Amino acid sequence: MVAFEDVRSAAQRLRGVAHRTPVVTSRTLDERVEAHVFVKCENLQRMGAFKFRGAYNRLAQLNAGERSRGVVAYSSGNHAQGVALAAQLLQVPATIVMPRDAPESKLAATRGYGAEVVLYERSEENRAVIAQRLCEERGATLVPPYDDERIIAGAGTAALELLQDAAPLDAIVAPVGGGGLFSGTCLAAHGLDAGIELWGVEPEAGDDVRQSLDRGERVVIDVPRTIADGLQTQSPSDLTLSIIRRHARGIVTVTDDQLRDAMRFAFERLKLVLEPSGAAALAAVLYAGMALADKRVGIILSGGNVDPRRYAELIS
Amino acid sequence: MVAFEDVRSAAQRLRGVAHRTPVVTSRTLDERVEAHVFVKCENLQRMGAFKFRGAYNRLAQLNAGERSRGVVAYSSGNHAQGVALAAQLLQVPATIVMPRDAPESKLAATRGYGAEVVLYERSEENRAVIAQRLCEERGATLVPPYDDERIIAGAGTAALELLQDAAPLDAIVAPVGGGGLFSGTCLAAHGLDAGIELWGVEPEAGDDVRQSLDRGERVVIDVPRTIADGLQTQSPSDLTLSIIRRHARGIVTVTDDQLRDAMRFAFERLKLVLEPSGAAALAAVLYAGMALADKRVGIILSGGNVDPRRYAELIS
Repeated sequence: MVAFEDVRSAAQRLRGVAHRTPVVTSRTLDERVEAHVFVKCENLQRMGAFKFRGAYNRLAQLNAGERSRGVVAYSSGNHAQGVALAAQLLQVPATIVMPRDAPESKLAATRGYGAEVVLYERSEENRAVIAQRLCEERGATLVPPYDDERIIAGAGTAALELLQDAAPLDAIVAPVGGGGLFSGTCLAAHGLDAGIELWGVEPEAGDDVRQSLDRGERVVIDVPRTIADGLQTQSPSDLTLSIIRRHARGIVTVTDDQLRDAMRFAFERLKLVLEPSGAAALAAVLYAGMALADKRVGIILSGGNVDPRRYAELIS
Repeated sequence: MVAFEDVRSAAQRLRGVAHRTPVVTSRTLDERVEAHVFVKCENLQRMGAFKFRGAYNRLAQLNAGERSRGVVAYSSGNHAQGVALAAQLLQVPATIVMPRDAPESKLAATRGYGAEVVLYERSEENRAVIAQRLCEERGATLVPPYDDERIIAGAGTAALELLQDAAPLDAIVAPVGGGGLFSGTCLAAHGLDAGIELWGVEPEAGDDVRQSLDRGERVVIDVPRTIADGLQTQSPSDLTLSIIRRHARGIVTVTDDQLRDAMRFAFERLKLVLEPSGAAALAAVLYAGMALADKRVGIILSGGNVDPRRYAELIS
């Protein structure tokens, strides 16, 4: 079972490879939230999102035979780029299954890192089935977006750095798609300080983890309609759900309007480019009525990959 | 005469007041420039630009009588906000003379910090005359945008931090409006390491400092037409010119198209919001044919205050 020590090992593996992203603060943000907010800028990570951490930590642990046969991944975007970049650095052939309607910038970037991209129709085909078939044909290793201990441990290194830079923290708030980032955050944070409140953030339309926690079992929802294309997951995995259940204080949801407002706040006040999913934790502390008064709160801005035209529409 | 020791003293004064902004790196940028580039993010400074450093360093040195009678400043934008915020923190009344066509975000932010804003017509009126009259009426102290030793020393603290984080550097590249940031950068850099090449960047249409260096005397040009509204100065001061002449390797110019491309690069690759002036040093290393191969180069991104609609136009 993945644990705090795996996050520490991942941090060793990522040293000098991933960016140690900055933690920034803003008086304006602190005044609005009435708390001390420490902003971990994973939008400034290599390939523009935290996903590189998990992907590299997974691929670095392939054996020689596995490396030569390559990897396959499926993703709505940032996991694709993370795997593609990690594969390029480790000289592993990569094939990425991506939805035809993924942001153009994410498709181009994935191909730019040298990966082969296989497109599918989000509404008609099952990406997991396509990826499985490719793996069988090629003897390749599947790199799932979140249901993997090494992916989770790699993702947890962001929170480890956040705490190294800003401890003590009363709470950490992070977005939840399939739960890889958030479960890694849970392991890292409670490995260092068992008293930290851990809050996950989901889009209101895609609250599969909240429903799963409420019902005590994994709930699968329809593909949610939300501008947060990185958080359009239909369910957590048993692994991420079990970690989240053990560690999290709760799940907060945010609307698409709140995500848009948070992106605008980041543009105007933080001068940071965020994609909608990347703004989830910021939206939560600004607009979701969380009880954070006077607390020291870490938030993870998970990514900044968004098409220029789409961004222009969203902020203006 | 302002010197390295004044930059050090300014850094003491700014400790815990100004942000120590992050220095970030990007493999993509390094590959494009074929150098090791260290990016000092003054767009992440309080009020969104380096200008807060100089303004606070100036206002913190007012005596009790001067504080009570207040300050007056004129500015096309960021200096206005810098003085307004420093005045608010130090409880000094501030009046800012701003052009009627300044970006709406800058007018709103200046008023938001509690300053009185007096508008003028850029083409018809002389802002220096208006500011002088206000000073006489009120017994207030004029805070010039760059022709002031304490403003220069404060601005130099950005380069001081950059070198503390990224030394040794072979070169530093910084934008030049009236020369406050660049002359402060010169003092800070050569105070630590006399071998560093120092390059200023001007918009092609507004190369008053380059012309002044070429002719050996202060040249005054017409208000330049450029998208870099923060660099629309008509001349350096004798003070900034003398410092620049003593320390700088040279001045590089960039076109408006290059500024726009650099803003887009920062959006797509660095996930940083830059205003046109703030992108000048990035434009220079990316597009101006500087001979930087394999060097360690520090660049200062000076600010990120830009209206959302204007930004949307520029990046899409």
